[in-house]
Parts: sequence; structure tokens; C-alpha cells
Amino acid sequence: MQVSQDLAGVINEREVDHEISPIFPLRWSKRAMSGELITKEELLRLFEAARWAPSSFNNQPWRFIYALRNSEDFDRFSDLLQESNRVWAKEAAVLVLIVSHKTFDKTGQPARTHSFDTGAAWENIALQASHMGFVCHGMEGFDYIQAYDELSIPRDQYVVEAMAAIGKPGNIEILPTKLKEKEHPNTRKPIEEFVFEGRFRSDNSELPPTYR
Amino acid sequence: MQVSQDLAGVINEREVDHEISPIFPLRWSKRAMSGELITKEELLRLFEAARWAPSSFNNQPWRFIYALRNSEDFDRFSDLLQESNRVWAKEAAVLVLIVSHKTFDKTGQPARTHSFDTGAAWENIALQASHMGFVCHGMEGFDYIQAYDELSIPRDQYVVEAMAAIGKPGNIEILPTKLKEKEHPNTRKPIEEFVFEGRFRSDNSELPPTYR
Repeated sequence: MQVSQDLAGVINEREVDHEISPIFPLRWSKRAMSGELITKEELLRLFEAARWAPSSFNNQPWRFIYALRNSEDFDRFSDLLQESNRVWAKEAAVLVLIVSHKTFDKTGQPARTHSFDTGAAWENIALQASHMGFVCHGMEGFDYIQAYDELSIPRDQYVVEAMAAIGKPGNIEILPTKLKEKEHPNTRKPIEEFVFEGRFRSDNSELPPTYR
Repeated sequence: MQVSQDLAGVINEREVDHEISPIFPLRWSKRAMSGELITKEELLRLFEAARWAPSSFNNQPWRFIYALRNSEDFDRFSDLLQESNRVWAKEAAVLVLIVSHKTFDKTGQPARTHSFDTGAAWENIALQASHMGFVCHGMEGFDYIQAYDELSIPRDQYVVEAMAAIGKPGNIEILPTKLKEKEHPNTRKPIEEFVFEGRFRSDNSELPPTYR
């Protein structure tokens, strides 16, 4: 499986400070894809993973709109992307627009956590894709406004959150030089920069001076 | 491991339509906790999982503020909860407030996906907790306004997203009757209700009449 093949390389580049399931550090946002298709069943396995994410009152506010590479829709989705993303994402097997529902399905009341919960479902897709040896790369570099119109998304009820390019791994040589250099697992802040005990750390250097 | 012990029961209750890593359907939002402590290292393993989530431009907008059961902070956090949550969440080993940064750390520019990305990090915590055999239950039933003040969160820069109660599994008998009945894995919508090809499905029955 791709995961075990990648293990040595990823673990060398990512310093994991506390023992966790390898599923988390093994996932990283590659760009090089082969242009191969994935099967409908493979696609459904990704959405199945999203399906089991937690959400407030089990509201499941996530929605996914996809375009398969070998469909007429693919160019419409690809055209939404900024050129810097399109240059590599055009080799995806599928492009997925990720949308959230602003209100509870059952009551119509505002759903405070619609974006947050949809992020949880998205992470399940990213993890499952990595587990299957696929490339899965989230993007905010696309035309959000045009996405609502082009994909008939009712903007009073739904929020466009992000896009994802998903496909089979490809040869890194097809990437532009700058992206070729970036094609390795990136790092993270240390825990102490984003975890605080008891209260927000007011001496955090990223805070504006008034809060120091 | 707790996971394998739970496997039969969970898989019986949850009908998984497409093959996915068991880490996803095995995670569910239990409430019954034992009141036991968890170690600092166990807590750090949860945040380590969050650490490796993806985010736009690797901005890592998630922040976590925690209160350990055996600390003075615990009552302050617990007091934020609605009574319906406090009744079971008071047996948690740790309460965690989940916060996101509205702007990019480096540039100060608005970060469109701050809530969405923070949801991805939260899901990693929930999955890692489940993997470790812990209870991990997200909540929006608490006083958001008071949380900013009580935990010194600068509201111009940060958004309170959710809270989580995390602890060791406990005896279901300690739960109130209503919650005892709910203490089993819940179900999900079928995929066709939240996945659309090409464009948002305008005949979706959940849409208001103007969009049908």
C-alpha cells in the first residue's frame, strides 16, 4: 500500500513529538498527479469517510459537488481555479467543491458550527484519500463568487468553503520548478504555540500590542 | 485496545456502505465518562494529532484552551456549559475550548477558512481520542459570549468554535435516563443526500420552494 511505501520518507521529514496514529502525519498535500481516473467506488469511499464525521446535533451540514475528469463538468470546475492551482490540479481525477449548510436541516435555525463541522468531514476525506494512496489537496485559490453561480449554489442557505483536487500520484517532474521544490511534507508549529492552559495566553507574541 | 473491543458493537449499529478505514465509523460521541484523569502525555498526543491537520497556506488557525479535571480551571470551564451538557461532561478528564484565528498569522490578512480548517484539526483530536479508547464529545451547548470573557479571548481576532469533553469511558448507568438511551453510535444520511455531481442538486427536497 502507498502508505507504507511513503512511511520512511514522511517520518524523516516530519518530527512527531508525541505518539499518534500514523494516519495523521502520513497525510500531506501533494500536488503531482498522473491524470489517471479513479473509479466511482473509490470516489464513494472518500465520501463515505466524510459521512461519519461528527457535527452539532448530527446535522451533517457538509455538501460536496464533484466533477470527474472524464466528464463535461471538469472544465467548468477547473475554470474556477486560480492559474497557480490549475497548473497542477488539472491532472486530478476529480475536483470537489466543499459547501456547508448555514441552517439546521430539520429546524431551519442558524447552525453555528456549519463551517467547523464541514471542516471535520473534509479532514476525513483527506485522511481516507491518503490511506488509499491518493493525492488530496485542499485549495482556497479559486473564484468563490463564480462558484455559487456556476454550480447553482443558493447563497442565502449555503457557504462555499473550499475546493479539493484528488487523484492518483504522478511524476513530480510534471510540476513547475517552484512547486517541484515544495513537493515534500511540510512542518508545523510546536504545540505550545497553539495550546493554552486555563485561558488564552495573553503574552502570545502574535497578539496585537493591546493584548500583550 | 478499546477500539477492537468496540468493533463488533459499533459495526453492528453503523451500516458502512463503502469500505473505509475503521477509524472513522468507530469514532462516536459517547457521554459516559469515569471521572478518571488522563496523563499530560495522553493530552499532548491529542493535540499532536490536531497539529498535523491541513490548513490554507499551512496557517494552522486552530487554538485550544484546556482545563484539567484536577485544576482550578475546571469549574470555570464547566460553568460555561449548559446544564444539559454539564450533567455528563463534569466527569471529563479535560474540557477543551476550540478557537480559531480570523487572520493569517504572518500577514494579518483575513483567513477565509479559519473555522473550516479548525474543524479539520478538531476531527484529528476526535479520531485520535477514539483510537486511544477515550470518550471525546464536541459541544455547542455552552455560553459563547461568556467564554470570550472568562478565557480572555480577544474577540476581534479570534472566534470561539466549540467545546469538547474528553475522558476515560465510564459506566453508562451514571447518565440520566434520556442520555442512557442515546448512548449508542448514531446513523448518518445516505451519500446521495449530500453529494452532487456537476452542480448543486436543485431538486433537493431540503431546499426552500424557490429553489425547487
